[in-house]
Amino acid sequence: MKLHQKAIMPQGFQCTSRNCGLKDEGRDIAIFYSKVRANAAGVFTKNKFPGASVILGREIMRNGCLRAIIVNSKVSNVGTGPEGIRNAQRMAVAVSKEFNIPENEVIMSSTGVIAKPLPIKKIEHGVQGISKELVDDPVVGAKGIMTTDTYPKAISASVDDATITIIGKGSGMIEPNMATMLVYIFTDAKIETPMLDEILRDSVADSFNMLSVDTDTSTSDTCIAMANGLAGAVDKKRFSDTLQFACIEMTKMLARDGEGATKLLVVNVTGARSKNEAKMIAKTLINSPLIKTMIYGADPNIGRILMAIGKCITCEIIPEKIEVRINNRLVYLNQNRVDFDETEIRNTLRGDPAEISADLNIGSGNATAYGCDLTEGYIKENAAYYSS
Amino acid sequence: MKLHQKAIMPQGFQCTSRNCGLKDEGRDIAIFYSKVRANAAGVFTKNKFPGASVILGREIMRNGCLRAIIVNSKVSNVGTGPEGIRNAQRMAVAVSKEFNIPENEVIMSSTGVIAKPLPIKKIEHGVQGISKELVDDPVVGAKGIMTTDTYPKAISASVDDATITIIGKGSGMIEPNMATMLVYIFTDAKIETPMLDEILRDSVADSFNMLSVDTDTSTSDTCIAMANGLAGAVDKKRFSDTLQFACIEMTKMLARDGEGATKLLVVNVTGARSKNEAKMIAKTLINSPLIKTMIYGADPNIGRILMAIGKCITCEIIPEKIEVRINNRLVYLNQNRVDFDETEIRNTLRGDPAEISADLNIGSGNATAYGCDLTEGYIKENAAYYSS
Repeated sequence: MKLHQKAIMPQGFQCTSRNCGLKDEGRDIAIFYSKVRANAAGVFTKNKFPGASVILGREIMRNGCLRAIIVNSKVSNVGTGPEGIRNAQRMAVAVSKEFNIPENEVIMSSTGVIAKPLPIKKIEHGVQGISKELVDDPVVGAKGIMTTDTYPKAISASVDDATITIIGKGSGMIEPNMATMLVYIFTDAKIETPMLDEILRDSVADSFNMLSVDTDTSTSDTCIAMANGLAGAVDKKRFSDTLQFACIEMTKMLARDGEGATKLLVVNVTGARSKNEAKMIAKTLINSPLIKTMIYGADPNIGRILMAIGKCITCEIIPEKIEVRINNRLVYLNQNRVDFDETEIRNTLRGDPAEISADLNIGSGNATAYGCDLTEGYIKENAAYYSS
Repeated sequence: MKLHQKAIMPQGFQCTSRNCGLKDEGRDIAIFYSKVRANAAGVFTKNKFPGASVILGREIMRNGCLRAIIVNSKVSNVGTGPEGIRNAQRMAVAVSKEFNIPENEVIMSSTGVIAKPLPIKKIEHGVQGISKELVDDPVVGAKGIMTTDTYPKAISASVDDATITIIGKGSGMIEPNMATMLVYIFTDAKIETPMLDEILRDSVADSFNMLSVDTDTSTSDTCIAMANGLAGAVDKKRFSDTLQFACIEMTKMLARDGEGATKLLVVNVTGARSKNEAKMIAKTLINSPLIKTMIYGADPNIGRILMAIGKCITCEIIPEKIEVRINNRLVYLNQNRVDFDETEIRNTLRGDPAEISADLNIGSGNATAYGCDLTEGYIKENAAYYSS
């Protein structure tokens, strides 16, 4: 499977973005629109302090269909009480009026600073006339949802006659639980809501839910899929495989563009007692600051890898059986360091991506996690961030 | 309760340290010695990849008494297989011969690089004649166990006629589970092994086990207590309270001297459903890189605090009830940001320590966690570290 060279919107989908005054410069609202009603599924953050758009979004998704998505950046509308819910609702109403579509077929997302009131009037004003600016280029929409991302992220893949397009943002506060920060999936494939929901959840489990930039789970994580059916039916298996492939590609893009990151880090765990334990161990490695800094420093530090495997104290781990590879070179076997060429491994670690593989040799549980290195850039970006 | 101005060794305890050639310069072995047999208790890392000295140390502690502790820095003797166990044993034998004490009353610790063979001959050579160098100053022993610590850590407190002295090291790979990196507690109080064990475990639970520098749990965490009885019996409650007080003071020292840290961060969680949930939430906040960087940047970012509370998805959390304080100033109440003086709070956050308090207002579970800010210094130290 492969991605298109250039992302396109599937048939019947368009998007646009604008500056409505939330940010001093740059686009701060985006609209994604389907000219016909689309079946829709969504998954949201499990954070117990969800944003207003997540609380309301869960309600809206019960309908199983959508016409449009509105997203604003800069202010996340989280920790804002009942007023926040009313403001999220007003975002949907504004889009409903502008596009002449049902209010309950518009979903909203907000990303940015927490515990600040949403400047709803600026958004309402910004939506006026925006329906005349719809375009076919998904990058225009992707630009409107960026916060600290360094570039807009949009990818497309084909399945039968249909297209799957994913638009996402990530960067910081990223260890999604049930969904990534903000990811929108559009397809012109014909697929019923329950099936779309099932395929989406399966794809998210092995892609966005295996992503971590910094262990911090956002209050706004949202992943929405819309299928408008204009390209007709597709083979379910191929659709599911293609969606998962594309979700993993988007996951890698989000990981590689993590705040301050210089490279993608991929961790493979094989031979665990169960898939769940493989996932837990892979996530623990991807989150270890000592592993993230050794990847930044291009040092094949086996000790940190063993330490991070071992700190999964609820998992079955037999030290005698563990094999470790760095960028496909065997470095640890039979309870001892292998006599490897350190200079050569250091050279490979200076490249992108870096890959750590641990085989526990106990069972058949396998998992892959996606992350990035930890650099001074992450510290600078987040220590310099002013919340007011 | 208060600490002595200057740490002293309790009656009958002495220590020393030397360079035996593991490090190019600086002390790399330390000995702690009791002139009479001491009752002893210990707790060790729960990491599933424990070092040879932890594996062997658990056996030795079954005797319930000790005469001496030998510690080396620079090489941790972890991930070294059966040869590592034999080398740990040889450390005990060397001390046993030099001091003419039983081999099974000597416990050993090793800290440093993982998955490198222990240069046991250098250690054996280094132990020869060391018994003539014993001194009463605990700082001399503390110097011998340092790795990336910026200063040696030794404190003393009194209880009745007895003294409790704690010597510790921490700095990186620090989120102990059942013990901190290396902590040795000496007392001349008379106290039986089972009681010592119980009091030690209770003290560790609320002190070293609530410490996290970087979420990474070492393979060598060890905390040993020795009570030689020379000062006679003490009141159990006062002993237990004083030990816990001193352990928390040492925990704060280890946190404040975390790799790259500029200050101590204390997180208090009150009103949780249970003490366990309070501990889980306090640990989650202390470990959040976004909270650690906001403390470094002296920014009162309420959103990051709410996010980190909310990501404890297995805990009972009612957003409507949460109150948040930063350095004792109320900043969040009734689902909304409080109108506080940002400049004033920023100024307090530039000081040391920084304190975050969250009251969940649900139950009576309280806990305090200890950590530090996350700075470029941590990245530099750990990205520049070469494991070979």
